[in-house]
Amino acid sequence: MTGLADVTRGRILFGGDYSPEQWPEEVWAEDVRLMKAAGVNSVTMGVFSWSRLEPRPGAREFGWLDRLMDLMDDHGIGVVLATPTSSPPPWLGRLHPETLPRDEDGRIEWWGGRQHFSHASAAYRRYAAAITEDLAARYAGHPALTMWHINNEYCTYDYGDEAAVRFRQWLRRRHGTLDALNSAWGTAFWSQGYGDWEEILPPRHAHYLKNPGQVLDFRRFTSDMLLECYTAERDIVRRHTPHLPVTTNFMPLWSGQDAWRWAREEDVVSVDLYPDPRDPLGAQHGALVQDMTRSQARGPWMLMEQAAGAVNWRGVNHPKRRGLNRLWSFQAVARGADAVCCFQWRQSRQGAEKFHSGMVPHAGEEGRTYQEVKQLGAELALVGTQVTGSHTPSDIAILHDWDSWWAGAHQGRLSTRVDYAQVLTVWHRALWQAHLATDFAHPEHDLGAYKLVVVPQLYALTDAAVDNLLAHVRDGGTLVCGFLTGVADQDDRVRPGGMDERLRELLGIRTLHEWWPLDEDESAGTDAFGGTLWSEEIEAAEGASIEARYQRGELDGLPAVLRRGRAWYLSTLPEPHALRVLLARIAAGAGVRRVVDGLPDGVEAVRRGDLLFVLNHGREPVTVALPGRHHDLLTGSAVENKLTLGRYGVAVLRS
Amino acid sequence: MTGLADVTRGRILFGGDYSPEQWPEEVWAEDVRLMKAAGVNSVTMGVFSWSRLEPRPGAREFGWLDRLMDLMDDHGIGVVLATPTSSPPPWLGRLHPETLPRDEDGRIEWWGGRQHFSHASAAYRRYAAAITEDLAARYAGHPALTMWHINNEYCTYDYGDEAAVRFRQWLRRRHGTLDALNSAWGTAFWSQGYGDWEEILPPRHAHYLKNPGQVLDFRRFTSDMLLECYTAERDIVRRHTPHLPVTTNFMPLWSGQDAWRWAREEDVVSVDLYPDPRDPLGAQHGALVQDMTRSQARGPWMLMEQAAGAVNWRGVNHPKRRGLNRLWSFQAVARGADAVCCFQWRQSRQGAEKFHSGMVPHAGEEGRTYQEVKQLGAELALVGTQVTGSHTPSDIAILHDWDSWWAGAHQGRLSTRVDYAQVLTVWHRALWQAHLATDFAHPEHDLGAYKLVVVPQLYALTDAAVDNLLAHVRDGGTLVCGFLTGVADQDDRVRPGGMDERLRELLGIRTLHEWWPLDEDESAGTDAFGGTLWSEEIEAAEGASIEARYQRGELDGLPAVLRRGRAWYLSTLPEPHALRVLLARIAAGAGVRRVVDGLPDGVEAVRRGDLLFVLNHGREPVTVALPGRHHDLLTGSAVENKLTLGRYGVAVLRS
Amino acid sequence: MTGLADVTRGRILFGGDYSPEQWPEEVWAEDVRLMKAAGVNSVTMGVFSWSRLEPRPGAREFGWLDRLMDLMDDHGIGVVLATPTSSPPPWLGRLHPETLPRDEDGRIEWWGGRQHFSHASAAYRRYAAAITEDLAARYAGHPALTMWHINNEYCTYDYGDEAAVRFRQWLRRRHGTLDALNSAWGTAFWSQGYGDWEEILPPRHAHYLKNPGQVLDFRRFTSDMLLECYTAERDIVRRHTPHLPVTTNFMPLWSGQDAWRWAREEDVVSVDLYPDPRDPLGAQHGALVQDMTRSQARGPWMLMEQAAGAVNWRGVNHPKRRGLNRLWSFQAVARGADAVCCFQWRQSRQGAEKFHSGMVPHAGEEGRTYQEVKQLGAELALVGTQVTGSHTPSDIAILHDWDSWWAGAHQGRLSTRVDYAQVLTVWHRALWQAHLATDFAHPEHDLGAYKLVVVPQLYALTDAAVDNLLAHVRDGGTLVCGFLTGVADQDDRVRPGGMDERLRELLGIRTLHEWWPLDEDESAGTDAFGGTLWSEEIEAAEGASIEARYQRGELDGLPAVLRRGRAWYLSTLPEPHALRVLLARIAAGAGVRRVVDGLPDGVEAVRRGDLLFVLNHGREPVTVALPGRHHDLLTGSAVENKLTLGRYGVAVLRS
Repeated sequence: MTGLADVTRGRILFGGDYSPEQWPEEVWAEDVRLMKAAGVNSVTMGVFSWSRLEPRPGAREFGWLDRLMDLMDDHGIGVVLATPTSSPPPWLGRLHPETLPRDEDGRIEWWGGRQHFSHASAAYRRYAAAITEDLAARYAGHPALTMWHINNEYCTYDYGDEAAVRFRQWLRRRHGTLDALNSAWGTAFWSQGYGDWEEILPPRHAHYLKNPGQVLDFRRFTSDMLLECYTAERDIVRRHTPHLPVTTNFMPLWSGQDAWRWAREEDVVSVDLYPDPRDPLGAQHGALVQDMTRSQARGPWMLMEQAAGAVNWRGVNHPKRRGLNRLWSFQAVARGADAVCCFQWRQSRQGAEKFHSGMVPHAGEEGRTYQEVKQLGAELALVGTQVTGSHTPSDIAILHDWDSWWAGAHQGRLSTRVDYAQVLTVWHRALWQAHLATDFAHPEHDLGAYKLVVVPQLYALTDAAVDNLLAHVRDGGTLVCGFLTGVADQDDRVRPGGMDERLRELLGIRTLHEWWPLDEDESAGTDAFGGTLWSEEIEAAEGASIEARYQRGELDGLPAVLRRGRAWYLSTLPEPHALRVLLARIAAGAGVRRVVDGLPDGVEAVRRGDLLFVLNHGREPVTVALPGRHHDLLTGSAVENKLTLGRYGVAVLRS
Repeated sequence: MTGLADVTRGRILFGGDYSPEQWPEEVWAEDVRLMKAAGVNSVTMGVFSWSRLEPRPGAREFGWLDRLMDLMDDHGIGVVLATPTSSPPPWLGRLHPETLPRDEDGRIEWWGGRQHFSHASAAYRRYAAAITEDLAARYAGHPALTMWHINNEYCTYDYGDEAAVRFRQWLRRRHGTLDALNSAWGTAFWSQGYGDWEEILPPRHAHYLKNPGQVLDFRRFTSDMLLECYTAERDIVRRHTPHLPVTTNFMPLWSGQDAWRWAREEDVVSVDLYPDPRDPLGAQHGALVQDMTRSQARGPWMLMEQAAGAVNWRGVNHPKRRGLNRLWSFQAVARGADAVCCFQWRQSRQGAEKFHSGMVPHAGEEGRTYQEVKQLGAELALVGTQVTGSHTPSDIAILHDWDSWWAGAHQGRLSTRVDYAQVLTVWHRALWQAHLATDFAHPEHDLGAYKLVVVPQLYALTDAAVDNLLAHVRDGGTLVCGFLTGVADQDDRVRPGGMDERLRELLGIRTLHEWWPLDEDESAGTDAFGGTLWSEEIEAAEGASIEARYQRGELDGLPAVLRRGRAWYLSTLPEPHALRVLLARIAAGAGVRRVVDGLPDGVEAVRRGDLLFVLNHGREPVTVALPGRHHDLLTGSAVENKLTLGRYGVAVLRS
Repeated sequence: MTGLADVTRGRILFGGDYSPEQWPEEVWAEDVRLMKAAGVNSVTMGVFSWSRLEPRPGAREFGWLDRLMDLMDDHGIGVVLATPTSSPPPWLGRLHPETLPRDEDGRIEWWGGRQHFSHASAAYRRYAAAITEDLAARYAGHPALTMWHINNEYCTYDYGDEAAVRFRQWLRRRHGTLDALNSAWGTAFWSQGYGDWEEILPPRHAHYLKNPGQVLDFRRFTSDMLLECYTAERDIVRRHTPHLPVTTNFMPLWSGQDAWRWAREEDVVSVDLYPDPRDPLGAQHGALVQDMTRSQARGPWMLMEQAAGAVNWRGVNHPKRRGLNRLWSFQAVARGADAVCCFQWRQSRQGAEKFHSGMVPHAGEEGRTYQEVKQLGAELALVGTQVTGSHTPSDIAILHDWDSWWAGAHQGRLSTRVDYAQVLTVWHRALWQAHLATDFAHPEHDLGAYKLVVVPQLYALTDAAVDNLLAHVRDGGTLVCGFLTGVADQDDRVRPGGMDERLRELLGIRTLHEWWPLDEDESAGTDAFGGTLWSEEIEAAEGASIEARYQRGELDGLPAVLRRGRAWYLSTLPEPHALRVLLARIAAGAGVRRVVDGLPDGVEAVRRGDLLFVLNHGREPVTVALPGRHHDLLTGSAVENKLTLGRYGVAVLRS
């Protein structure tokens, strides 16, 4: 077993994606000079190098990469080497058109961009394995090599014929028999019964609503097929370098991959993180992704990509304000990142991402962006030995599950306004703003370590997951569930009564009569707060306590918040402030403490190991009461009882 | 000849779509118990049973259906048996890919949803006929069988190659010669002259605007092809059971079928009706569809589908408030429905419609929805013998025509804001709110029975239709026409002068200089009201009376409302209240009386036979003055001079 | 050499597109009577006549056109004869499906509309050449023939296989070697290196962002291929009639054609112009297009199409108010038009454009539209001899370039809110409202004649263009540049520093740190005005003067408007009034004079030759101070010191 600690060795990895094939070799020397000046100790190479490495089918051009590997080694910069398989060369599509994915409308995704490969294509997999094999063989013993990065942001799908063949194989493995599949998909409805495996297709364009079981399984299949692509390449490189860790970079809160399953197959969990610099809640988005990635990694993780400035894929792309890149980098470190890297080192002059920022901007060394990168590199070097490898504790687990996300997103649902990722974000935000540290967990994970388990929304729950929730409460834990939880089973079959019977009993729900989704111009008043997005016509069971009641309207008097002992149920989404207050009250009742008491709005405190990170997300200076005497690793000075932070200020304190 | 009365025999049919193939047989017994408790006397089976009945090409599996037919018969529940042809089994698409429709972009509609059949496919028709034949043969003599339901919500189209062949055949029949077709389509413009029938295609994706004649004929063709599918199956079942009526269910105000033509081919006219429970004007939408369906049926009709609660195909789907399903069911009965059925009996646990409500909801027997269903069943049984078969009278005909709708919807029109169905709705709403009972009629129908004929908008009128309007006025009737009426002929050829000359003369229009469509932020002021959507630069003829004049702007002083004797013309769309007042005034002048005088807003009164239905669409109690003594069939009590109705209250009165 | 003057011979051409094949021959006589009454002296025929001329492959039907040519000649009406190649007959698509274009998703553009031809199709070109040849041969000597019009509104594209072949040929010519192409497109990024010409495709649908170099070259290729289609036909007709001028009609400010290159290949530059009659700034849109067309023509030009009333392709299509067609026609004459024509003569009764207005409306001779056409014809006849051939002077050149437009529109740009055409429009508007006459020029044109050169936005500039700007300032000219100018080179390669170094030096920019695009709800305050759309983090160079500074926010104190001598740079887009004031100030500094001083808002003055056109774009009468004594050609009366114009009034004055 190998992991991130084998690479960091007490340093925070700092650097980014480096695509030197874009530049003449004379620029490489300049790059190394600027890297060293900025404290860069790690670069990721090869991500998009396939056509350079294999310009013709079977050709191999390693010389340029040899020189770069040596150059990095000469300057003590480690290399995370990527397999180049996320962007096949043009010749592959020409030679094997079946490697090109088709969307549900039958449109081909042609080369000319990137990620134009079908995960199901045998030809693609064969060529990908071959280049991976040769790359691993060549650099296995190179002293610069520190880690493997497989592919990049796996996110393709395919509705084509070869994918159909693989889908059928996957379904045979999952369901065993056609009868079982017909049962799982509910094909008795709408005359969809399959009599032969060959009749089954990916869920292509249909006249009206598609079969939700088929769509759900296709999402599982797609995640699994991409994972097969990953593990195939991982196994190759591992054979050559069993001592080096392997990763692939996730996209944050991305619906296409079941990252719980994927993380198990990685030595290092890494993620790409691009909060919108314009978004006043960008920092919370960062915190959520960082909490989730740390939970998937079960410890320190790698920030594989962030932007030193602007990205170029939003409608309007803001650069980062002065200090923001530093602030968000330290936020990641506080939440467990032992590697802080950017896409990309030097901003491109050509190609599709030339307006995506680089650590070295178009303005060059004099540019503000590079100047800030330099400062950040120096500061990370300062704190590296004190933070790497240490853990970020939490008493709260937020449950999150891709299967449930996929099942709940079917076309024929009651409200298109209910967006799983948005609901998850709103609940995490409430806890974040209440200064409560959170982990994420899968509903079947061991929850024994947590005082409070939070379920913003798990539409589909397996029996095992229900068992797990029941056990958590039975064992003294507190549970709070949002609406649309436990509605369906693992096949998206609605539970009798519209919600799992045991869960209803746990939460004190006698009858769930009707769901009442709320439109944009609607809200559900209660005696305690305003409800949004959803409401429910439910009857409380005997012994349940109604903590908030709907007022007026059709639901007048019915429970909005139900409680039975340590189990809480919210049948609506309270307005943000009310949700924060309610969750803080439940957390307090469960014995969970805030990270630091009395923090002003916009200031975040995170404990990691024996350090306390304090982050000012505001653009005005703040003073924070911090009883006792602390040492600030960044300034080297003492802090007594109170800490003053400037705009976007950061302190890393040891008490 | 057979009809609905042969089935109802004094009872209002009550029940719904029943898809027992979704459930284990033990649930069937429970279903029957709950049906009996709710007064259900009719179920529709087989709508989506093709893959169950014919799991492999040519196979026949009738055993399960035999048992269900017997079960229904044992409990005195009639069965409306559907041909299962709206959703072919997966094997059909695999065996005959040409049965799958293509859209105008060439995209295939795959199986996995429903209605993935091309009306033009010989293979589809062959298989559909075979299963229909065997189904009819098997159950022709079954005592439970009461009626045939062909297919379901015909609504497919096809732009593929087999459809092209059939389109050419249809065009040959319509136009006879290529010269006639070229003339009808105006192909002299834009170099579109056809020299060979084989050159003609469905109106597939084009660079710019499509030929409107081609699009119009393609819509006619599509409606006719679907109708051929219907009549082919109808003829088969009729051969086996000449004594049983046949229907197919329309979608309300659906543009794809010329329901006037279709209704002539049905023994029972049935419709599916799903007003949005959130819409404060949902009841008016219901009234419009009911008026139209009754007019198509020329008497009692069948409400084939409504929802006991929520549907699942809107963005945000509300359930029905307590009492609303009962209220809307009685509204349908008042307007001629002798059958009140739901889709579907038991809410699905799986498949694309599991969040579409059922008469038995997920919550089961205890659920509010089922409890209300039970009450409704009892009440319908109470009034059945007194209402079935009786007629709903009206002195007003609103003219409606699919050809005109289609012609007016062409791409190159002057305003995309003018939506035919919306204009029709707004005019019907004005009359409904004025408590004026309305029928619908085709412009070539005999209008002799009507005092007032209302033409919200008939962009295209045949010569015969113009004759009909002229005769109506000549014979003493009153006529009121909205703008964009009589602009084109049956081939969408603009009439000289921009509007039929005889119609202009009838309405008092000397010259129609220019149309002035109004954008969202525009209105046309007059000396009487504000005009919306449209205005016109017209000159009045001698002898015409200007009832309202535009004020200010380019049209200052020109006629907004013109009248020549009993013929009225509105060159703009008055604001809702003004339209209601104006139409009420015209109706009064024509000698049309309100159903009941002095009704408050939100209360609807409908006469059917010798009964008066009074419906409170509001959520507050109301008291209505009703001079005289009446007997309320629902309460069994007397009503003298005034009637008090609770929220969503209904009274069925005999005077 | 031949040109427009050979056709006008002292008359302004007046008339329009005439499609008599839509009408029975008896209408033709009526047409001629109405044409003569309206002063029509030119009609354009044959634009969409291919299927009439060649109803079957190889057939020729000229008789009907012979009769029409003779009819026109008999009545002294000149004919602009069009090659009919913009709308191939249905048989061509059937016989040669490869002539049908495919879009980037692979969808075919079928016949049934118009312009369904691939510019790359050899079969299309062969048939187009043949009909052109025979048409030219037949009418070369006809006395009615005055000019050739090739095709119509060239605007097609093709992503299909034959286009791919031609694209490769074009790329070989442009780049010579694959290495050069790989370098120009920056294929080293994202593994896009091409190893074989056959691997190159049009930029079809891709998974993510497309290669911007490929997209840019595909736009150039498309413009060039269309131009090849044009020149092929032009060369044919020229062989038959070397004495007659040839044109094709541009669409105004259309992105698909590099009109600078096209204009060089035309004897007469013509344009179609359809400002929205509802738009209060419609007149400015007209002025812009007229200025641009005149600049392309380098003298008088032809208004090939305008609408006498409404068009039918907007969402809501207004007719023209009384007087507006006359006003806008004179605006075109003032700005250099020697031909004022409409699409089309008689409004169609059928086909896709039957709601597009004609000079003879549906209402016929009595209709207001025709009555106004008559008046216009008489007035144009009155002034013809005095204006044709004369020039409209300007001291200001606005630079405009299609290459830069295309390059700047790539998917991965920083703000989708920055729309080149809109920025160009806003800058022209500011100058127009300041009563400053403007030409347009290409950035590599000789700018010696201009005191002020205005660059609203030229994202990409060649080295030669930068030379040209530098030379202009060096030679004493004034230059003002908007943001996003000089960012990239001819291959869309970002210039080091993010902006051309020499240009930065010229404009006084030391470092361009970051671009700060502004979202809809953002603005950038300065000490002088509010900035919109964009802002920049720049440092001024020594010696540069900061004319406006950002205030507050991240850019506080940085330059919003920079000036170094006669070179100005705007790093944001000032609000409209501020932009107008700033540009007027710069123009005044450059010695540019207003056309007329002291004009009220909404009144435009244009000098052409020794005439002064004064146009009141308002709907209220105005009085304008005009010192001295003038003669109004339209009224025949004298104007002394002041001129009063009614609503939409026009005066054509000689001093």
